[in-house]
Amino acid sequence: MSEAAKTLDGWYCLHDFRSVDWSAWKQLSSDERQKAIHEFLNMAEQWNAVQDDNAGSHAIYTVVGQKADIMLMILRPTMEELNDIETAFNKTTLAEYLVPAYSYVSVVELSNYLPATEDPYQNPQIIARLKPTLPKAQHVCFYPMDKRRQGEDNWYMLSMEDRKKMMYSHGMIGRQYAGKVKQIITGSVGFDDYEWGVTLFADDVLQFKKLVYEMRFDEVSARYGEFGSFFVGNILPEEKVAHFLHV
Amino acid sequence: MSEAAKTLDGWYCLHDFRSVDWSAWKQLSSDERQKAIHEFLNMAEQWNAVQDDNAGSHAIYTVVGQKADIMLMILRPTMEELNDIETAFNKTTLAEYLVPAYSYVSVVELSNYLPATEDPYQNPQIIARLKPTLPKAQHVCFYPMDKRRQGEDNWYMLSMEDRKKMMYSHGMIGRQYAGKVKQIITGSVGFDDYEWGVTLFADDVLQFKKLVYEMRFDEVSARYGEFGSFFVGNILPEEKVAHFLHV
Amino acid sequence: MSEAAKTLDGWYCLHDFRSVDWSAWKQLSSDERQKAIHEFLNMAEQWNAVQDDNAGSHAIYTVVGQKADIMLMILRPTMEELNDIETAFNKTTLAEYLVPAYSYVSVVELSNYLPATEDPYQNPQIIARLKPTLPKAQHVCFYPMDKRRQGEDNWYMLSMEDRKKMMYSHGMIGRQYAGKVKQIITGSVGFDDYEWGVTLFADDVLQFKKLVYEMRFDEVSARYGEFGSFFVGNILPEEKVAHFLHV
Amino acid sequence: MSEAAKTLDGWYCLHDFRSVDWSAWKQLSSDERQKAIHEFLNMAEQWNAVQDDNAGSHAIYTVVGQKADIMLMILRPTMEELNDIETAFNKTTLAEYLVPAYSYVSVVELSNYLPATEDPYQNPQIIARLKPTLPKAQHVCFYPMDKRRQGEDNWYMLSMEDRKKMMYSHGMIGRQYAGKVKQIITGSVGFDDYEWGVTLFADDVLQFKKLVYEMRFDEVSARYGEFGSFFVGNILPEEKVAHFLHV
Amino acid sequence: MSEAAKTLDGWYCLHDFRSVDWSAWKQLSSDERQKAIHEFLNMAEQWNAVQDDNAGSHAIYTVVGQKADIMLMILRPTMEELNDIETAFNKTTLAEYLVPAYSYVSVVELSNYLPATEDPYQNPQIIARLKPTLPKAQHVCFYPMDKRRQGEDNWYMLSMEDRKKMMYSHGMIGRQYAGKVKQIITGSVGFDDYEWGVTLFADDVLQFKKLVYEMRFDEVSARYGEFGSFFVGNILPEEKVAHFLHV
Repeated sequence: MSEAAKTLDGWYCLHDFRSVDWSAWKQLSSDERQKAIHEFLNMAEQWNAVQDDNAGSHAIYTVVGQKADIMLMILRPTMEELNDIETAFNKTTLAEYLVPAYSYVSVVELSNYLPATEDPYQNPQIIARLKPTLPKAQHVCFYPMDKRRQGEDNWYMLSMEDRKKMMYSHGMIGRQYAGKVKQIITGSVGFDDYEWGVTLFADDVLQFKKLVYEMRFDEVSARYGEFGSFFVGNILPEEKVAHFLHV
Repeated sequence: MSEAAKTLDGWYCLHDFRSVDWSAWKQLSSDERQKAIHEFLNMAEQWNAVQDDNAGSHAIYTVVGQKADIMLMILRPTMEELNDIETAFNKTTLAEYLVPAYSYVSVVELSNYLPATEDPYQNPQIIARLKPTLPKAQHVCFYPMDKRRQGEDNWYMLSMEDRKKMMYSHGMIGRQYAGKVKQIITGSVGFDDYEWGVTLFADDVLQFKKLVYEMRFDEVSARYGEFGSFFVGNILPEEKVAHFLHV
Repeated sequence: MSEAAKTLDGWYCLHDFRSVDWSAWKQLSSDERQKAIHEFLNMAEQWNAVQDDNAGSHAIYTVVGQKADIMLMILRPTMEELNDIETAFNKTTLAEYLVPAYSYVSVVELSNYLPATEDPYQNPQIIARLKPTLPKAQHVCFYPMDKRRQGEDNWYMLSMEDRKKMMYSHGMIGRQYAGKVKQIITGSVGFDDYEWGVTLFADDVLQFKKLVYEMRFDEVSARYGEFGSFFVGNILPEEKVAHFLHV
Repeated sequence: MSEAAKTLDGWYCLHDFRSVDWSAWKQLSSDERQKAIHEFLNMAEQWNAVQDDNAGSHAIYTVVGQKADIMLMILRPTMEELNDIETAFNKTTLAEYLVPAYSYVSVVELSNYLPATEDPYQNPQIIARLKPTLPKAQHVCFYPMDKRRQGEDNWYMLSMEDRKKMMYSHGMIGRQYAGKVKQIITGSVGFDDYEWGVTLFADDVLQFKKLVYEMRFDEVSARYGEFGSFFVGNILPEEKVAHFLHV
Repeated sequence: MSEAAKTLDGWYCLHDFRSVDWSAWKQLSSDERQKAIHEFLNMAEQWNAVQDDNAGSHAIYTVVGQKADIMLMILRPTMEELNDIETAFNKTTLAEYLVPAYSYVSVVELSNYLPATEDPYQNPQIIARLKPTLPKAQHVCFYPMDKRRQGEDNWYMLSMEDRKKMMYSHGMIGRQYAGKVKQIITGSVGFDDYEWGVTLFADDVLQFKKLVYEMRFDEVSARYGEFGSFFVGNILPEEKVAHFLHV
């Protein structure tokens, strides 16, 4: 057996994609729509309070194309809180007009392919990465992925040393995008259908394409990456929610 | 032909995942919802009585993410009883508001990769594992899986000796999680689309990820594991059902 | 080109799986439901008459889990008769409350991997197998399958001799289940998405698992078997149809 | 690069599969249903006129099993005409009760694996095959297919000579079914998801199975064939449309 | 790591496929339908103004077969504009009768497999290709694609030199279709599920088939091409929209 990678794990994460049922939404009266938006913004207000307390974080984006219309990304210290938020959201009036499109359950993760430190959970820099406040970037990109286990291309049969070397070189590519793209890796082994979720934030949407494409030529992706669906979107600040939903 | 593994088989098992249709549920009057909840809790009461008689067991969990909202896991001595429970549940008022999301049909299984014993069906420890009372753990994780049959990675072409050796080392990883994760293996060859269902119970949800990830580096999973969808959830005690369904 | 297997072909076969729409079914009055059940049982009575005349056969089972609630299996001498039965069934009131879940179109088949005989279509034993009256076993198991054509594991590139040898050893496993499991193979090349349908009947449902699992270690399945979905169910005698549908 | 196969191309082809929504259809009054049937038969009458002018052809079949209830196959000189027919059909009353189930867009094709001729488009025999009047056979079989490009089994990396030799031997099998099965190959590279559609016509439905199964042992299919869904059905002459739709 | 290909990127692109819900559309009054069409044509008028300003481009086609009824292709300088257009379109009355069928998010791309130039973004010819006005061709063909990463056939493990050589020879095939087929490549790494979208325009629809089929014998496609769904359609000029939607 190859030596297993060890991980550091932080906040639990729910990516929740929904499509607006515009036909049904239009059948509400203007008053009813206002109430529904108000109820949602109140909920977002509570999320903001939690975020201000460093007890969680969240992001709201619209999504381009038919896969979904909006994406909520929620970070919380426990799986129960994620579930509570999801259920509370499902019970709102707005949710009656949002058709579930995709979701992903994971936990913020750092891996031991990174240099080791003494008791990392006491390291403020690491804590900040495990329990991050999500940036207010203009754009988001999300995709789930696996490491391949297929014939000669089996990541999990490689030695720790080989994996470490490849992950290091892979990380070097990411580092070139520092300041342009912020990446949050969430682990989902045992939680959802792929092994990781990758969430990228950038003010220039083209940097997503440049980063992911450049990485694809790196052996880690070229030989060992299996990718799920890609979602790309634009930030939806709370003050623009009413505009987005105006009909 | 390789020597086939022999199995010990216990109670039949139905995993039943459903999503709440909150929009329709809200259209009921508060009285009607109460009645529906009451009817469901009465049914759960009967299941409890069966469990108290050691004539079956069951568990109720909420599920995180859009794959489902709740999971019922039912164990019974016969396939007919499973079918009767499923049909009775389908006929309840609550079920009208629960959209089928996924299900899995299997039977609790122990394999002969474990050390042999004399007439295992007389061994109380083995009987307790074949007809288990499900734990009241805070979290559940379920996924179906196959052993791979692909090119050079064909589990079923390996000798019994090789399989036994690998399964032993695989079991050793599981053993390190004793006290943290309880695992119930159910066999589904001939019953459902994968060969096994794996149900994990833990009070610390992160242990699911640690266990499944560590195992993935073990040859049995790395070369021979094919995994279906993963579902993760939180316990829903009967006294919280009304709260969960409150709108 | 490898020598093609020759087949003997008997009655055409339709497996028809449906899920009950319980919510809609409950909205009928008790009288309307009785009428619908009566209409269905009348149709089944006609099928019985055909079966008594040895001009076809049929079976009705409930299905465990969410894949379907009931399975009809219909055997008839022509594809037109199958289509007529399907269409007549679709026009009944009951069918308005049965959502199509899966179907399979095939023909009862014996292959020339079996020992050759002179004009097999004159052999009463073979005719009895090609035009079988379906047993009233407690349980049914159905799955479609292909023989693999992938890289080194390509069944159709093997010599007739190799295939014959492997099929013989495969048949030997089946023979050990004589009296426990009755197997009906239906061929579906050119008729449906897999190459064969396998329908198993048994009074002890566990025998399905034992048989299919043991066979999986045999080279024919281990290297060359590709399996579709598995359905397992319990017999639904006509006198229990009203009970099953009672709400 | 391997020498590309050249093709001769004839009429454009739409296979259009639909399922009857019997519940909704029954809710029409008998008069409304008659009108809808009448409207459809009028449309079929126009198609007949086109066919009589050798300006196109069409076929109407019922389909066995749940994949669809009816199949329309339409041949026309231009893609615009196909689209117009499809749109006109979609606007009929009957189409409101026919749920789209599958479709396939292609063009009648002959390939240069066949012996070359001088200006084939002047050859009446070839023109007759490129612009065929569809036979009134009792049964139809349709499936789309690809030539495999996978590891060692890559059709498109073979030399023209090798492909030609294999296609010749493949054609020899087909020739044995002359008089029993009529085959129309339509090419769909650039038009639909597979590379070809295969439509077979026969009065004895068992000949589909015999032909496709025998071909599967031939290297072209065994190593290089990738098959989509198979649809099988029975002819629906216009004079039986009203009977088929009678409820 | 292989040297990554560099790309030039132009306008962002949304392909948006929809199916008409004819049954619902017919239930509108003739007046309501006229209003809905008028509202859509007004929107198209605005798109035309943008196109006249060289600030974007768009195309409207009907689609043959059941995959969709119409395709909108929209080019804009930013992802936000694409999203705004999509959302505005979703809010129209017509969109209530158009069921989402498929969409694709990408950006017009030229790759450095092409000969290098000094500051290409200053080159008017290149700018014209990165920010193209879509042609009014009679026919469109769209499909997404990946470069394969599978066993021995792994595009991303090839050297830049090998890839360049193969892309050159691939491009030579395309060049033979100059004047017959116009091709627009859009990159979607990080934006959608495949790596590229290919949109072809031609007045003779058969040229799509000839081009794609010929390319399939070229090593780039034969060994390294993975293709998604193919959509083919006919131009829908604004003056024919009312006719197309007339019921």
